[in-house]
Amino acid sequence: MTDIVKPSTLPGFMELLPREQILFNEMLDTIKRNYEKYGFLPLDTPVIEKSEVLLAKGGGETEKQIYRFQKGDTDMSLRFDLTVPLARYTVEHFSDLSFPFKRYQIGKVYRGEKAQKGRFREFYQCDIDTIGNEKLSILNDAEFPVVIYHTFKDLGFDKFVIKINNRKILNGFYRALEIEDTVSVLRTVDKLDKIGVAKVKEELLEIGVSSENADKILDFITIDGTNAEVIAKLESFEIENETFKEGVAELKTVIECIGGYGVPESNYKVDLKIARGLDYYTGTVYETELVDYPEIGSVCSGGRYENLASYYTDRKLPGVGLSIGLSRLFYQLNQAKIIGAKKESLTDVMVIPMDDYEMDSIKLAAKLQEAGIATTVYTEKAKLGKKFKYADSLNIPYTIVVGENEVKTGEYAIKDMVKQEQESLTVEQIIARLK
Amino acid sequence: MTDIVKPSTLPGFMELLPREQILFNEMLDTIKRNYEKYGFLPLDTPVIEKSEVLLAKGGGETEKQIYRFQKGDTDMSLRFDLTVPLARYTVEHFSDLSFPFKRYQIGKVYRGEKAQKGRFREFYQCDIDTIGNEKLSILNDAEFPVVIYHTFKDLGFDKFVIKINNRKILNGFYRALEIEDTVSVLRTVDKLDKIGVAKVKEELLEIGVSSENADKILDFITIDGTNAEVIAKLESFEIENETFKEGVAELKTVIECIGGYGVPESNYKVDLKIARGLDYYTGTVYETELVDYPEIGSVCSGGRYENLASYYTDRKLPGVGLSIGLSRLFYQLNQAKIIGAKKESLTDVMVIPMDDYEMDSIKLAAKLQEAGIATTVYTEKAKLGKKFKYADSLNIPYTIVVGENEVKTGEYAIKDMVKQEQESLTVEQIIARLK
Repeated sequence: MTDIVKPSTLPGFMELLPREQILFNEMLDTIKRNYEKYGFLPLDTPVIEKSEVLLAKGGGETEKQIYRFQKGDTDMSLRFDLTVPLARYTVEHFSDLSFPFKRYQIGKVYRGEKAQKGRFREFYQCDIDTIGNEKLSILNDAEFPVVIYHTFKDLGFDKFVIKINNRKILNGFYRALEIEDTVSVLRTVDKLDKIGVAKVKEELLEIGVSSENADKILDFITIDGTNAEVIAKLESFEIENETFKEGVAELKTVIECIGGYGVPESNYKVDLKIARGLDYYTGTVYETELVDYPEIGSVCSGGRYENLASYYTDRKLPGVGLSIGLSRLFYQLNQAKIIGAKKESLTDVMVIPMDDYEMDSIKLAAKLQEAGIATTVYTEKAKLGKKFKYADSLNIPYTIVVGENEVKTGEYAIKDMVKQEQESLTVEQIIARLK
Repeated sequence: MTDIVKPSTLPGFMELLPREQILFNEMLDTIKRNYEKYGFLPLDTPVIEKSEVLLAKGGGETEKQIYRFQKGDTDMSLRFDLTVPLARYTVEHFSDLSFPFKRYQIGKVYRGEKAQKGRFREFYQCDIDTIGNEKLSILNDAEFPVVIYHTFKDLGFDKFVIKINNRKILNGFYRALEIEDTVSVLRTVDKLDKIGVAKVKEELLEIGVSSENADKILDFITIDGTNAEVIAKLESFEIENETFKEGVAELKTVIECIGGYGVPESNYKVDLKIARGLDYYTGTVYETELVDYPEIGSVCSGGRYENLASYYTDRKLPGVGLSIGLSRLFYQLNQAKIIGAKKESLTDVMVIPMDDYEMDSIKLAAKLQEAGIATTVYTEKAKLGKKFKYADSLNIPYTIVVGENEVKTGEYAIKDMVKQEQESLTVEQIIARLK
């Protein structure tokens, strides 16, 4: 007799029941389909990498959270994002790639975070990035909101806003105000939506910004209006700072091109408040908000970076990218019951054999399958009620019972499990009905 | 200045270039589509599990190969197959599942094997299993060759044979011969295709089988003919052993039902030689051979097992399943240049702007995308030749150059990159042509 081990997963590791998994996979497929449609190439890198490669950048929170271990003489780690593997991949396979290199990657990443509701230690990231060789046109920055717009529409959302800003505008503006510590200002201003204007001003004063400048900053970042109006206001600012001007010109191009791609004005918006972290992004930045669920926070973020892979190469590889954190998004949407699968079952029909009509059931199933209808045969001995209950528990929309009468007449009673209605049809009629 | 780390992956970890990845994903999608079509529910379990859960069965080669590590107080391991996670999942979520529980799982598994050509430490398994609660009809065993037949057909193969046997037949036969050590005999006989009849007989004598019995065994396992002929021969055997008789009856049902599902006789075959390992499988066993590439070995194997999860529960959970080891299969097919993607590019059209016609190019691209045509815009400043070369390197089948003339006339020169032919068409004509 073996000892029984209690089967359970580790805390912080998401695992779904089949009906939830169907929904999750539907979202994953929608994202993948859109990424591919806009010319992003698929990539799949190992989950395990050499620690020295993965941690080349080193330091910070990440290093503490990483799953790192030794096997034989090898020091290895699980990837904690898809960006570092992209950097490694791009440099390692540089001569085999064509630039701009547009790739997507959907995969699991690992972070040993403190376990808490809605935070996962294993989670899916869905990344798209475009990498240039030495340089990369600003036109690329316009493509990402377009892809995300179509992705979220296909995911079933209408009311979402892709917020767009440009870090050069912020940096240039702060420098024009002769503020030295722009990083601290950015960090403080980033809290505006959370803590409000008064608190932000207070904190700005604390870090040594003058009251006059604090007011100017707050006036500036809360500029509102249509995209064209905000751009026009920015252009009218008499700020003699090249970085600022460059940022405004870039933002203008990005906003105009997104319009050119046909994205409705209501789904993308210049928002001078967003800054996205502190050192990685250098130009365009994006955040995406579900209008009716602002509490979820940004569901898709990213931006432009100067250099993807300085830890692996002297070559300059500028890039721009976006990421959807699908596990967290799914968890929140599912908890809030915001989403439902288009189809709750991947199977269209269950054929239920009466005793001794197993072979006839199989032959009927084969005909339906041949016609492209996802069909399964109930295989076990059981009372009819139990068989129907099984089909119901799997949300299978149609059942067909096969017995003496059906085989004789060639007409099969097909039951709509939702409407609880039944109809006698030939195989051809069933196929026509279900296709 | 940061130190440069040489970017590279660990040995034994497969990583593909984009055009190979397109092909790999196409295969993965084909497998997934077929698994779903036959009623298998999707599952996705964590890559990391508690070591005590994953290694509950313990012992053997597996334990040496496992990636096991500590994080905080937790002893965790990477999954080395998808069967142990299935067992854990089925017991953990038992009350939420409907039985027979048909599930598929496609995912990466990890084994720290000795690195060698064509063997991987991270590789994809594509599993389907049906699990019963206490009992499971033999009809289920017939479904797996049907799914695999359609999967391999859709993968582009015609000449493959799914070999089917039943362990009860072998065990019953050997017991009828009063052979005690059936395990050693099975292991020896399993080598027949590799070492031939004479060598197998020699080894049988060495392990104490009488010459008469050795001849009987060799006669028996090399029985050949159509499936019906082999079954008829087995039924005519005067062997008074219940296990043998049960095995023959099961095999007969399986073979007849596969026929009922419409699988051609040339693609499935009773083969009394196959036994699949030594203790896990207890009834039906499967192996699949690509007829023109026998050197690849079995590309898809599995069988019936008595009890999925005895380490986690006292409940009896019989099951039957099959697995495709996709990474290894892909590697071998790719090396032998047996396979090619249906589409070498996921992008249909690249729009190439002349200087200052970026916005017009974007608007054209948007129209094509709207019509469902996967379109990308070339974004960088470069000579026209370089732009065409880029499209070519990505195998994009069509390019459209947009400049003054095109915008004026509304007619665009669309170039077939394979035929190197060009034609002037309106947007509507282009859409009609490409759809």
